[in-house]
Amino acid sequence: MSRYGAMYGPDLTFLGVPACDLADAASFADADVVIVGAPFDGGTSHRPGTRFGPSAMRQACYLPHDGSRPSLALRVDGLRDLRVYDAGDVEMFSGDIERSLSALEVAVHTVASAGAIPVVLGGDHSIALPDATGVARHHGLGRVSLVHFDAHADTGDVEFGNLHGHGQPMRRLIESGAVRGDRFLQIGLRGYWPGPDVLSWMAAQRMRSYEMTELVARGLDTCLTEAFRIAVDECEGVFLSVDVDVVDPGMAPGTGTPEPGGLTSRQLLDAVRRCCYELPVVGVDVVEVAPPYDHADITAYLGNRVVLEALSAIARRRRDAAGGDPWNPEKPLLDSR
Amino acid sequence: MSRYGAMYGPDLTFLGVPACDLADAASFADADVVIVGAPFDGGTSHRPGTRFGPSAMRQACYLPHDGSRPSLALRVDGLRDLRVYDAGDVEMFSGDIERSLSALEVAVHTVASAGAIPVVLGGDHSIALPDATGVARHHGLGRVSLVHFDAHADTGDVEFGNLHGHGQPMRRLIESGAVRGDRFLQIGLRGYWPGPDVLSWMAAQRMRSYEMTELVARGLDTCLTEAFRIAVDECEGVFLSVDVDVVDPGMAPGTGTPEPGGLTSRQLLDAVRRCCYELPVVGVDVVEVAPPYDHADITAYLGNRVVLEALSAIARRRRDAAGGDPWNPEKPLLDSR
Amino acid sequence: MSRYGAMYGPDLTFLGVPACDLADAASFADADVVIVGAPFDGGTSHRPGTRFGPSAMRQACYLPHDGSRPSLALRVDGLRDLRVYDAGDVEMFSGDIERSLSALEVAVHTVASAGAIPVVLGGDHSIALPDATGVARHHGLGRVSLVHFDAHADTGDVEFGNLHGHGQPMRRLIESGAVRGDRFLQIGLRGYWPGPDVLSWMAAQRMRSYEMTELVARGLDTCLTEAFRIAVDECEGVFLSVDVDVVDPGMAPGTGTPEPGGLTSRQLLDAVRRCCYELPVVGVDVVEVAPPYDHADITAYLGNRVVLEALSAIARRRRDAAGGDPWNPEKPLLDSR
Amino acid sequence: MSRYGAMYGPDLTFLGVPACDLADAASFADADVVIVGAPFDGGTSHRPGTRFGPSAMRQACYLPHDGSRPSLALRVDGLRDLRVYDAGDVEMFSGDIERSLSALEVAVHTVASAGAIPVVLGGDHSIALPDATGVARHHGLGRVSLVHFDAHADTGDVEFGNLHGHGQPMRRLIESGAVRGDRFLQIGLRGYWPGPDVLSWMAAQRMRSYEMTELVARGLDTCLTEAFRIAVDECEGVFLSVDVDVVDPGMAPGTGTPEPGGLTSRQLLDAVRRCCYELPVVGVDVVEVAPPYDHADITAYLGNRVVLEALSAIARRRRDAAGGDPWNPEKPLLDSR
Amino acid sequence: MSRYGAMYGPDLTFLGVPACDLADAASFADADVVIVGAPFDGGTSHRPGTRFGPSAMRQACYLPHDGSRPSLALRVDGLRDLRVYDAGDVEMFSGDIERSLSALEVAVHTVASAGAIPVVLGGDHSIALPDATGVARHHGLGRVSLVHFDAHADTGDVEFGNLHGHGQPMRRLIESGAVRGDRFLQIGLRGYWPGPDVLSWMAAQRMRSYEMTELVARGLDTCLTEAFRIAVDECEGVFLSVDVDVVDPGMAPGTGTPEPGGLTSRQLLDAVRRCCYELPVVGVDVVEVAPPYDHADITAYLGNRVVLEALSAIARRRRDAAGGDPWNPEKPLLDSR
Amino acid sequence: MSRYGAMYGPDLTFLGVPACDLADAASFADADVVIVGAPFDGGTSHRPGTRFGPSAMRQACYLPHDGSRPSLALRVDGLRDLRVYDAGDVEMFSGDIERSLSALEVAVHTVASAGAIPVVLGGDHSIALPDATGVARHHGLGRVSLVHFDAHADTGDVEFGNLHGHGQPMRRLIESGAVRGDRFLQIGLRGYWPGPDVLSWMAAQRMRSYEMTELVARGLDTCLTEAFRIAVDECEGVFLSVDVDVVDPGMAPGTGTPEPGGLTSRQLLDAVRRCCYELPVVGVDVVEVAPPYDHADITAYLGNRVVLEALSAIARRRRDAAGGDPWNPEKPLLDSR
Repeated sequence: MSRYGAMYGPDLTFLGVPACDLADAASFADADVVIVGAPFDGGTSHRPGTRFGPSAMRQACYLPHDGSRPSLALRVDGLRDLRVYDAGDVEMFSGDIERSLSALEVAVHTVASAGAIPVVLGGDHSIALPDATGVARHHGLGRVSLVHFDAHADTGDVEFGNLHGHGQPMRRLIESGAVRGDRFLQIGLRGYWPGPDVLSWMAAQRMRSYEMTELVARGLDTCLTEAFRIAVDECEGVFLSVDVDVVDPGMAPGTGTPEPGGLTSRQLLDAVRRCCYELPVVGVDVVEVAPPYDHADITAYLGNRVVLEALSAIARRRRDAAGGDPWNPEKPLLDSR
Repeated sequence: MSRYGAMYGPDLTFLGVPACDLADAASFADADVVIVGAPFDGGTSHRPGTRFGPSAMRQACYLPHDGSRPSLALRVDGLRDLRVYDAGDVEMFSGDIERSLSALEVAVHTVASAGAIPVVLGGDHSIALPDATGVARHHGLGRVSLVHFDAHADTGDVEFGNLHGHGQPMRRLIESGAVRGDRFLQIGLRGYWPGPDVLSWMAAQRMRSYEMTELVARGLDTCLTEAFRIAVDECEGVFLSVDVDVVDPGMAPGTGTPEPGGLTSRQLLDAVRRCCYELPVVGVDVVEVAPPYDHADITAYLGNRVVLEALSAIARRRRDAAGGDPWNPEKPLLDSR
Repeated sequence: MSRYGAMYGPDLTFLGVPACDLADAASFADADVVIVGAPFDGGTSHRPGTRFGPSAMRQACYLPHDGSRPSLALRVDGLRDLRVYDAGDVEMFSGDIERSLSALEVAVHTVASAGAIPVVLGGDHSIALPDATGVARHHGLGRVSLVHFDAHADTGDVEFGNLHGHGQPMRRLIESGAVRGDRFLQIGLRGYWPGPDVLSWMAAQRMRSYEMTELVARGLDTCLTEAFRIAVDECEGVFLSVDVDVVDPGMAPGTGTPEPGGLTSRQLLDAVRRCCYELPVVGVDVVEVAPPYDHADITAYLGNRVVLEALSAIARRRRDAAGGDPWNPEKPLLDSR
Repeated sequence: MSRYGAMYGPDLTFLGVPACDLADAASFADADVVIVGAPFDGGTSHRPGTRFGPSAMRQACYLPHDGSRPSLALRVDGLRDLRVYDAGDVEMFSGDIERSLSALEVAVHTVASAGAIPVVLGGDHSIALPDATGVARHHGLGRVSLVHFDAHADTGDVEFGNLHGHGQPMRRLIESGAVRGDRFLQIGLRGYWPGPDVLSWMAAQRMRSYEMTELVARGLDTCLTEAFRIAVDECEGVFLSVDVDVVDPGMAPGTGTPEPGGLTSRQLLDAVRRCCYELPVVGVDVVEVAPPYDHADITAYLGNRVVLEALSAIARRRRDAAGGDPWNPEKPLLDSR
Repeated sequence: MSRYGAMYGPDLTFLGVPACDLADAASFADADVVIVGAPFDGGTSHRPGTRFGPSAMRQACYLPHDGSRPSLALRVDGLRDLRVYDAGDVEMFSGDIERSLSALEVAVHTVASAGAIPVVLGGDHSIALPDATGVARHHGLGRVSLVHFDAHADTGDVEFGNLHGHGQPMRRLIESGAVRGDRFLQIGLRGYWPGPDVLSWMAAQRMRSYEMTELVARGLDTCLTEAFRIAVDECEGVFLSVDVDVVDPGMAPGTGTPEPGGLTSRQLLDAVRRCCYELPVVGVDVVEVAPPYDHADITAYLGNRVVLEALSAIARRRRDAAGGDPWNPEKPLLDSR
Repeated sequence: MSRYGAMYGPDLTFLGVPACDLADAASFADADVVIVGAPFDGGTSHRPGTRFGPSAMRQACYLPHDGSRPSLALRVDGLRDLRVYDAGDVEMFSGDIERSLSALEVAVHTVASAGAIPVVLGGDHSIALPDATGVARHHGLGRVSLVHFDAHADTGDVEFGNLHGHGQPMRRLIESGAVRGDRFLQIGLRGYWPGPDVLSWMAAQRMRSYEMTELVARGLDTCLTEAFRIAVDECEGVFLSVDVDVVDPGMAPGTGTPEPGGLTSRQLLDAVRRCCYELPVVGVDVVEVAPPYDHADITAYLGNRVVLEALSAIARRRRDAAGGDPWNPEKPLLDSR
């Protein structure tokens, strides 16, 4: 396998970071992070279009594509303080979900095995199965917890006659043992799916799912603190899966299964920052950005910023671990940090 | 009159609930709720398009149209735990507002007289006049209070030379005695209309109008609690009228008279839930969803979810009244409820 | 199998024609035409969205959904003079192209075997393989010619590692013997695909492909006359496959692989009319209408009108065959026809 | 009545021509042309929005709003060589079609009585009834023929329980005697409406309706020549009514009842030019431009250019009548004209 | 120089306030406020379109353009209680930034010199340089502080080889001495620009920049109170510069350099109100509304409402200063205020 | 100068052709064609956005970005049979038109001097001045004729107080002597600009401008044949300047100054093909593609295909000149060519 490049548009790297080739181990041997595109929407139950998500998220920025993004908030450069490469897209034919997910799992495992954090740009949420599996195969099945921002639990069983699809990856991950049910932390659920049977199954797995009602009643930060404590209990790493539909569709319309009543963009960015700053994140995916339903690229921008927020916080976590002052959100921007 | 079906598109029912025919009393004899479409925008002072609101709100969902929607938050199925029918659209020619509103009043009264809760899908807000009148004629003039979410007071007098229109229904309701002025609870007003004369008239009626400034300063929940207490004072029932423009146009662009600075979608859904869970709601309308100005159906989705939220809360209220545990918003999703 | 209904939205029939159930032979025993939805876009190489094509084409009309459409041009009612049913959608999971195409082939063959003309609403062009195969299995392999309006030849071999996809159905049909290569009439090709190897293969099959250059230089009607003569040579029936991208993307933007320089909508409608009036059409599909990329439903309207034009012309052909005056396009509208 | 100004936006004049006030006869005493806005869409059977047509058509231009538009093709300035005023909008409440149409008829008659040509900017096609009636009342009932570009015949009887609406004005005009049935020239009809009964009625009135089939088969120019000959037989004046949906919806999407297969923009402009250059036009309306469904203002631009084309041709007709060289379309642009 | 009128569309005034001509001092001699359009986007580093901002903000309202807007929240009419004129647009060719900014500075200074508050409708943020300079030249260099709502610091040095552009005005203002660095109050910064060098320069100027992190952690109102205290320290006046991109792009998509994670519309309106009610504002600009990227005019509406909020608060401040009761946000709308 | 890359998005090459660097002569020493991006819209008089034209035209294709595009019509591969490089964008700050145009002229001249054909992707039409000048400086002032497809003559004098802008380049080219007035061939003019004075100036220069009226009356092909004959009279080379607004805005909405009544896309592609096949083209620009006003990328696709059509025809011209059979548009696609 040589570098595949982009299926859906030109072969770009995320904001201009260096390219690598997963078939050439030397090309990313020193990587801290490898970005992987998963242009797949064959698992979508409703509106497709996420196959253009990787290209859109790589491009959505008004600043030069120069491989550098110094964070105002965290005072690190997530693209420079970490060694970040972009491996391009994995070939994923939307008409063949099994082969496509397998190919992605190989790619993600390749990255994880090299000691780097895979950051996968979806694609629909079907890809969380190979994403988290690929990471767990390296770090140990059941040794990676999953922090999952989403409007939907994604724990369906068989849908459209198939075990795979964007409503089912979390069930498959638990069934396979890749992730322990009681190390699943779901944030932002709401709406009218799944029904009681699936909820019972989830309860039986001892999943911890924070529906919006609870988040509003108890406060998002309180719930995150509680969830993060569970996430690191008996787990060495955390996989962060961000479905952009966790944000209210009024603010993030470019997605396939919009569910009103979600988080604000600000809340999501802050939560991702906390997750990556406070927890030992070993893998990330950002999914369900569907450009055909977007307007003025605002959802693509949000996906891009979720990635940057994650990378910035990982970089800051490493810097602070190396002896820096801990990050203080109340400090004025222009005070020395 | 036989079932009219849809004027603006195919004859659909709301998310697949059974159809009924208002001309055939047997077809909805056991109904708890009857949905009625009011595809009318002849009363709109600015951007039209709400005639497509009923069709859009009936369809806006990524889940199967199977007449079932189990609420994650409330653990009831608003479409199954209640007996819900959809009577289709009332014939309403936008070029003849008087005849159209009369036809709708007949339809709403027919539903209320059968002991069911009418849920009217607008249409522009002109329809609140026949909606609340039709209900009040059954429950008693002046015996139904009105909880009204809106950016606008809708208490104008004559506009465009006419007594009817989407800026005037609330005045007509008070003048006719259908609803007492001091049982009008308005939530979310803002902007630059109406002027001092109309405000004086409103004050003279002893209406209680919560402008956004007060909601921000005192807190939405505090204000709702206060308003709800008034609503049930000497009234047996509550009519809930939700103008989608109460939400900020940034989150709900598909409407005719957008006024920046509104509620979030999350706030509206929570407020509707509280209203229908805490109060004896006897009628509902959801108005001013204008699909031509919508993007990616997000405003139609919001309208759909407002209906579901109302039905879910009504179902939960009935379940709890029948002896269930009261609903606790702080309880985790997967704990037995 | 019971009637499946709609995967992507409510269960509608085409402009209100009666529903039937392919699992219940009696429900369409007297059908002249059965409409079948193929909501599948797993075979799309670029922009997805055609899964919403069936729903969009069924609804795109400003007239009542009453199962009647009297043609001004042909003075027949394609939905009433013929017995037309709508079987709803076939379950087609976009993530599994092989199973999906098989399910569609069964459905189409079921219709053809009942003596009716299947009219399949796509979906991407992958479905032409099961569409034409299902028909040919009934009428005889190699006994049905194929008139194919398209910007693309769709004769690719393996793409994305798969034999199936929307760029390959025509090759598969020839390889399987379902349709003879020299009875393939392609109208409207243009652009930059396929390359010389595939063109050589096509020439070897003795396909007859009319690129836009030839159509402009010789005249569309001249070319159609020539093509239609070939189509009925040693063939009993004709399958008409209309890819909406044969029309210029300026007039039909809602499609996945737009190629500038196409026919006008008027030209396509006239050509479809001629095809169905002059030839013994035994099956039709209309594909590649992708609503997410459409504007103001204009491409969905065009797809809807292609279906109506085909049905009207079939009805007129039957009427004239039964002894009516032949159709004369120069006759004034209001002269008795 | 004082100058009403704009209902739907600021009070603008068409490309900056001088304003006049219909209540002040002196303000337009010397007018050749008076533009009148008819912001009404209460008669629309499907997509509304034409109430914003007048404002959109007045503004849609990239050149300065300076009240001058020298035509390259005709070498006259339709806004300066004629004395053109803009009377603003007539107050037309979309919820009351009868009152609204009456008010418009008064306005149009006022203009015609002053010896000027009214040019009415719609609004939906309901307005053709007051437009042509207002003109005919001045020039003589039955003395003005009607040249009508449209996809639809607009000869329906009762619809939505009403005699008025955008599908019925032509019938009302004939019934009232304002326009003779055999002086109705309809250009561009197509599609699936009206049905046989209405067509029989039309034939009985001896209307002459050119469906697209005939236009394609015989040639648009041939048909226009024939129609124009009829138009001036026993009639002193011609009313030109242009429904923008006569153009293919691919090129003019911003309209309410799009019917694929229409004229090109070029064809319409050329036909309007011929009509106003060759015939004694005494009134014009341009209707059915619906901005909410438009994209990048292209339909509004088309409406604006239809007005300019008409005014330019009227100006050129007058110049040539005053002794100029007749217009020659084959002459190079830069030759002295 | 005579009144220039509008470059980009018809010559409108803001919601119908009277026009004035900057070349004719008498035409605005008694003005409290003069609105000036700055249709310039030649300084934009990414998406252009703000040249249409002035026209869009002037028109974006569903109420009559009658020069009156009584504020529900503040019970004053910002357009009537103040004497407000609109001077039209300044001629600003986007291809020549230096000449354009100079022309604007002259216009703003002319307004300020007449004792009126200039309210400039942008245009891109390049215009803050002439806006604040024009005001400071009248009130005294270094005597006017700057309250600046924005996602970006706009303190870049040379970009695209030029000293001017929408990312640099704040630096130029400090360098020239027009505004003191330590009287710059920036609210809402976030994202990934500028880098450390520019931040160091900003710190050296003793600017006070509130990044979103601090605003969330400490509370927006707390930060505003702190900032406002600085603003009036040793300064007689405050210039308020509102870049609409301070609001989250999900709620205000029509802008050129969208940065996710911003304020809500409600927060911005409340903050602008506080600023203009609590501080001695002597100039305002509202910039970066880019209509080509807007949807359903929601961003234009927001810009319009920011202007109205500012004017209403200024009017209320003056009324209260003249002896009225101070404004109390907790007071019910219908209580006498 | 090192390779500048893209100002407005990532650094892409046109459909994947190799990159070159204008500062490194060796990188394009063997080039037949060098593509240059001119992301400039500072000269636009109305809607901006063409700065994103180069990026959009480089990307707008559903086929792999592999640097190969075999033309069905011409049976050559314009990207492979010619040696084509992409030099990236020239730095052009839209706020400084003079500096920007100078920088582009240097770039174009560099390409021409190397013996390659520059193909410039605009950008607004201001760039035609440096484009044609840069070429003429190499081939000889007055020795290159200009074939100009456009709705507008672009021969204005001073506008917005400036000699440069997108309405003036053709005048500047004639004034400077770069192109002879009587070797200017303009195709597709229409509308209401320029006025008589400018037309007189044009006539005095002996320009030959084909307005749409003449094109319709005499036939496009007849006019092209006439124009092409003039173009090669006493000129060694032809510069082809294609303003995408020559196509009807209904088919090409993504542009700044849309003028209804234009060519179809098919007509433009055929005309460009003829121009590049029949004439000795030495430079090309494709301008006025404005992505913010585009829909579903259809105008960007058209711009991309204009470039490909030009390159294909140049390649075929060279092949035929080298002894191949002349191209015959009537020949079937699959006959050996």
